[in-house]
Amino acid sequence: MHEILMEEKLLSKNDGIAALNRAALRGRGVFSINMVSSPGAGKTSIIERSIPFLKDSVRGLAVIEGDIETDLDSMRVKRHGVPVRQITTGRACHLDAHMISHEIPWVCGIEGVRLLIIENVGNLVCPAEFDLGADLTVCVLGCAEGDDKPLKYPAIFNKSDMLLINKTDLVPYTGFNVERAVDRALKINPCLKVFKTSCSTGEGIGAWCACLSGLVSNVVK
Amino acid sequence: MHEILMEEKLLSKNDGIAALNRAALRGRGVFSINMVSSPGAGKTSIIERSIPFLKDSVRGLAVIEGDIETDLDSMRVKRHGVPVRQITTGRACHLDAHMISHEIPWVCGIEGVRLLIIENVGNLVCPAEFDLGADLTVCVLGCAEGDDKPLKYPAIFNKSDMLLINKTDLVPYTGFNVERAVDRALKINPCLKVFKTSCSTGEGIGAWCACLSGLVSNVVK
Repeated sequence: MHEILMEEKLLSKNDGIAALNRAALRGRGVFSINMVSSPGAGKTSIIERSIPFLKDSVRGLAVIEGDIETDLDSMRVKRHGVPVRQITTGRACHLDAHMISHEIPWVCGIEGVRLLIIENVGNLVCPAEFDLGADLTVCVLGCAEGDDKPLKYPAIFNKSDMLLINKTDLVPYTGFNVERAVDRALKINPCLKVFKTSCSTGEGIGAWCACLSGLVSNVVK
Repeated sequence: MHEILMEEKLLSKNDGIAALNRAALRGRGVFSINMVSSPGAGKTSIIERSIPFLKDSVRGLAVIEGDIETDLDSMRVKRHGVPVRQITTGRACHLDAHMISHEIPWVCGIEGVRLLIIENVGNLVCPAEFDLGADLTVCVLGCAEGDDKPLKYPAIFNKSDMLLINKTDLVPYTGFNVERAVDRALKINPCLKVFKTSCSTGEGIGAWCACLSGLVSNVVK
C-alpha cells in the first residue's frame, strides 16, 4: 500500500513538472516529441535519417538524447549540425519530466527552434509511465524484435500517438509479420498513426517527416 | 536522499530473499539461471532451441517465464513438454526475488528437476539490479540491436556471467560487428563467457548447452 502511494505521489509530481515543460515549450513556439523503443530499435538512426527532411521543412530543430551511459548518440546527431544535449541517467531506466526541465532554458535559447526531439532511454516499459511534457509520443518497433511486442508491452503502445515499424528491410530474414504487428498495436490503440520505415533503404522516412512537419506547422505558428 | 535510502532498503530486502531462493533451490539440487536481454533479443527462442539438447544432457528441466503481459512465451515452452510457470508482472519492468520465491515450492515439487531457467522481462536496465537467487546470469544480445549496447547498458553486462550474441544470421543485413560487440562487453566484464548463437541456423546452441550442462553436472550432483 505504501509502495502504491509512493508511486502515485512520484507520478503526480512528474505530471506537474511535465505540464510546466509543455507550457514553457509551447510558450516559446516549440513542438516536442518523445521517442520510445526497446534498445537498438533504431531511434537514433531515424533521427539521423530525418534531419535532412526536417531541416528543409521544419527548420529550427533541437535534440535531447537520453541514455544510461555514453554520449555516443548525441555525437551521432551532432555530426549533422543539429543542436543536441545528452542526458545520461546513470541507473535510471527512463527520462522523467524533472530531467527535461533542466534542459528547457537551453532549448528556449536556440534561435528559431520549432521542433524538439527527445530520444528516451531504450526501454519498452517505464518510459510509458513518465510524461515528459512532449506533445507527441512516437514508439519505434524494430522488425527483428518480434511481432508479439504490442501484446507483451501494451502500455507503451497505448500511450503512443505514432508507431514506426522500423527495419522493414529485415523482414525477409526474420519471421516478423508487419501486418500482424500493426493489427495488434491498433487493437490496443486504434488512434495510432503507423509508418513503415527503414533507415537502410530510406523507406517511409519522407512520409513520417512530412506528417511530423505538418503537425509542427499546425501547432506552432 | 530519501529516494536513495528507500532504494537501498528495497534492494537489500530483495537480496535477502534472493539468498533464500538460492539456498532452497540448491538444497533441492536445482541449478538456476536468469536470462536477461532487450525485448525481442531471442530469449524464448534460445530456450526452445536448447530444450532438445538439455533434455538429453541435463534431463529435469523447468522454466519460469517473466512478462509484463500475456502467457505467449510460456505457451511456446509448454509445447516442448517442459514444466513452465508464467509470472505476469503487470507494470513491473523486471522480475524480483519475491516473485520467484512464490514459485520455489512448485519448482521443488517437480520430480527429478535439476535446471531452472528463469526468463526475465525484456529490459536491459533494471533486471541488472535485482538478484533473483539464480546461480548464473545469461545476457542475450541480438545482432539487430547494435554493437554499442555494452557501452550504453554496462551494468547488465557487468552483472552477467555469460553472453549470447544471438541472431548471428542477421549480421550480413545489419551493421553489427560481432567482434567489436564482444570486445566492448569483455572490457566491461573480462569474465564473461561468450557464445555466438542463431536460432535460425542453430549456430552455437549445442556449444552453449554443453557448457550449461557441464555447469549443472559440476554443481548439482
